[in-house]
Amino acid sequence: MAGAGAPPHAAGAPALADARRLRADRARQVADVLRRQVLYGEFRSGTLPAEAELVRDFGASRNTVRVALDLLRAEGLVERCPGVGTVVVAEKYPHGLERLLGLAETLREHGEVANEVRTTGLITPSREISSRLRLPDGEPVVYIERVRRLNGTPLSLDLTYVSRDLGEPLLAEDLAHNDVFVLLERIAGQPLGRADVTLEAVNADPHSAATLDAPRGTALLMLERLTHLADGRPVDLEFIRFRGDRITMSGSMSRT
Amino acid sequence: MAGAGAPPHAAGAPALADARRLRADRARQVADVLRRQVLYGEFRSGTLPAEAELVRDFGASRNTVRVALDLLRAEGLVERCPGVGTVVVAEKYPHGLERLLGLAETLREHGEVANEVRTTGLITPSREISSRLRLPDGEPVVYIERVRRLNGTPLSLDLTYVSRDLGEPLLAEDLAHNDVFVLLERIAGQPLGRADVTLEAVNADPHSAATLDAPRGTALLMLERLTHLADGRPVDLEFIRFRGDRITMSGSMSRT
Repeated sequence: MAGAGAPPHAAGAPALADARRLRADRARQVADVLRRQVLYGEFRSGTLPAEAELVRDFGASRNTVRVALDLLRAEGLVERCPGVGTVVVAEKYPHGLERLLGLAETLREHGEVANEVRTTGLITPSREISSRLRLPDGEPVVYIERVRRLNGTPLSLDLTYVSRDLGEPLLAEDLAHNDVFVLLERIAGQPLGRADVTLEAVNADPHSAATLDAPRGTALLMLERLTHLADGRPVDLEFIRFRGDRITMSGSMSRT
Repeated sequence: MAGAGAPPHAAGAPALADARRLRADRARQVADVLRRQVLYGEFRSGTLPAEAELVRDFGASRNTVRVALDLLRAEGLVERCPGVGTVVVAEKYPHGLERLLGLAETLREHGEVANEVRTTGLITPSREISSRLRLPDGEPVVYIERVRRLNGTPLSLDLTYVSRDLGEPLLAEDLAHNDVFVLLERIAGQPLGRADVTLEAVNADPHSAATLDAPRGTALLMLERLTHLADGRPVDLEFIRFRGDRITMSGSMSRT
């Protein structure tokens, strides 16, 4: 039994390539645990434990620990500060998978969400969008495009299609400082009900990356969400690109 | 009202940079709708509609449609075939967010899941892992590392930590052809219960990318999942890297 979890096939004298693979495999294990600890704010001081402590806790070599820290640095989560150590530089905010919430509602305790409204207008949507909103072909919808920021940091780029009867009153509201969900409920005079969601990871195209102040190719958590009123009518179709280095989604699932 | 959804601020004669930004914005709208249609298999022939038809349906310029198709090509979803048109080249498989299922259970209708078991062994985990599995510090756990493939295509790289009492019998089972979930239930003599999940999008480090036969930096959908037995004991902690171009997660959320 190896503290470092050395796999059985490494029993012989490994060739250099094997050693590298082993170190990379071990570094990934270490990085995954540290990533979670960063995510859940377990390093309250904002500084990771010293290398020697990580070496001890993970039963890993100093080299492996360094490669693991490099992985987190490449993800933009930590930075090495001479004389200080490895510090957490990016905060990721948890977005719940449990309950349908707007971003400002979700992140209330983390600060203020402000929206840059890039585009609004009445458009004739493609057939796919009409069909998902259960509208006849050619029926106009309201289109809203926003960059959403928390305390000034861009979190997401949201493309939103709303049925005209609710969307037109929406355009008269303060879209810069309110979640669409909250406004929709006020306008509709009824709560929202269920939403169908699809989550993907995609690499940012250059233009989306620039809009989100993120590096080209950065991993985005992409959410497509069709939200219904409590009465079952689909009224709000969104395509949301979350910066992968800023947002996580979490929740609970059940086997039965 | 513009069929193309031209935003109000574009009313004047736009400078070249503005025109480019507009086209990029419009291309993203078109690409998001097409991505969904590809995902949900709406192009049954495997070929996207001709450019002229897309131009008509989206009320977009031919240039915008081409930029949109380029975006999907950059994501590895479609390819342009001379004389044929734009064809779907990658299939993304839906993984449910509703119910806790293993990969083979989830993808049963899509084909056979086979697992390459890269590493197994008894290890002394770091304190973070002990604490999540509610084990005393220093108590060994079983570690399993697998690359999971559907019909030969790598879908995910899974790092799994299992409590020793269930993990040791697990190692005697056929891990290449079974979901850990199914085996755990058999060994434990009780069903699994609830799992806490966290989803993120991260760029693949070079070694993870190579292990998944994916390009360096590719967007991964990363799932951390702590699964409990029906009796509430946490027994299975996993760090799963799904290839973003192969897997989506979907489900339904409720406002209340």
